[in-house]
Amino acid sequence: MSGRLIVFEGIEGAGKTTQIRHLQAHLETLGYPVLTTYEPGGTALGQQLRAMLLHTTQPLSDCTELLLYAADRAAHVDHVLRPAVTQGQIVLCDRYTDSTLAYQGYGRGLDLATITSLNQIATAGLVPDLTLWLDIPVDVGFARLHSRGRLDRVEAAGRAFHERVRRGYTALWQADPSYRQRLEGTLPELDLAAAIWQVVQPHLPLPPADSN
Amino acid sequence: MSGRLIVFEGIEGAGKTTQIRHLQAHLETLGYPVLTTYEPGGTALGQQLRAMLLHTTQPLSDCTELLLYAADRAAHVDHVLRPAVTQGQIVLCDRYTDSTLAYQGYGRGLDLATITSLNQIATAGLVPDLTLWLDIPVDVGFARLHSRGRLDRVEAAGRAFHERVRRGYTALWQADPSYRQRLEGTLPELDLAAAIWQVVQPHLPLPPADSN
Repeated sequence: MSGRLIVFEGIEGAGKTTQIRHLQAHLETLGYPVLTTYEPGGTALGQQLRAMLLHTTQPLSDCTELLLYAADRAAHVDHVLRPAVTQGQIVLCDRYTDSTLAYQGYGRGLDLATITSLNQIATAGLVPDLTLWLDIPVDVGFARLHSRGRLDRVEAAGRAFHERVRRGYTALWQADPSYRQRLEGTLPELDLAAAIWQVVQPHLPLPPADSN
Repeated sequence: MSGRLIVFEGIEGAGKTTQIRHLQAHLETLGYPVLTTYEPGGTALGQQLRAMLLHTTQPLSDCTELLLYAADRAAHVDHVLRPAVTQGQIVLCDRYTDSTLAYQGYGRGLDLATITSLNQIATAGLVPDLTLWLDIPVDVGFARLHSRGRLDRVEAAGRAFHERVRRGYTALWQADPSYRQRLEGTLPELDLAAAIWQVVQPHLPLPPADSN
């Protein structure tokens, strides 16, 4: 059985973590082998990079940040994502290449062609089977964030930044909707889980023979 | 006064550190403002990356390593090299873009065009005024290394690897000798320092007015 790479994208507070848990639960009920993971930080080395990216108090130039995200992704692809997909797992990944385009490209204004080229180097061609974009207004995301408490470096970047990021996700989805699906992130939690399942199901391999 | 970026390159044990000290001493005698620095690790963030690159016990894929070197370089360029050159300093840098071509390209066999593209992203066009390649046979470098004691991750990569790296430096120098100078690294220490001075002097701005 060949696995799948299913990516969740969206601004902070979009509900990615919660919806990954619902999808994981449903897939496991059906007997699928599931791996949930995330970027940045999905490897031991990535955990160190994540700490630099989200919590450093040292100066961090935009270009350095971009290359650290790429290094984190390369480690994640080589040691986690590609092995899991090759072994037939359904991989649910919180953020991937579109995050870099949306945050560093549209958000920080770095060159999109440079980011695309870095994404290709870091992933060596491992593209998602499906990218689920949970779209919510920035106000809604911010309200959810603030109810969680202290913000990290990216979350604290301000409203105008996150508006640009959301417009970035919109542009990416409009440019190539073939493997990207927009979902209404303001739906009630279980309605959104059901909507996600409708989108995901056609992309799955047959359930394992020993299920049901 | 506009500064200069002078890079020292070569395999382990080539004498870069020692020769940088001699050149620094002579330049300071003449009244030049000098900054000595190195890659990887020339910034606070770079120190953390250097520890990952040289001493990690976790798996580190070739692509991840390449991107970590690029991130280290971007931080170094943005926070150290470009400001120093702009302020008129003579910057003596132990390793730069040619190291990545020689070690990751020729040594590990990664695609040279990819590395060149990453070097351009990381440096944003800051090219050396002069690159001094201290060339020594691998045997000589290894003998010097072993007299120093315990080896780091790159130093321990073996003789065949370092032979490929040396051939890489040769190929780079042959491909574009316009700003690269090969120096005979087996010369006695002070003879080599004198040879380096002969090469460096024509590339310097006039000494500061208050010297001599």
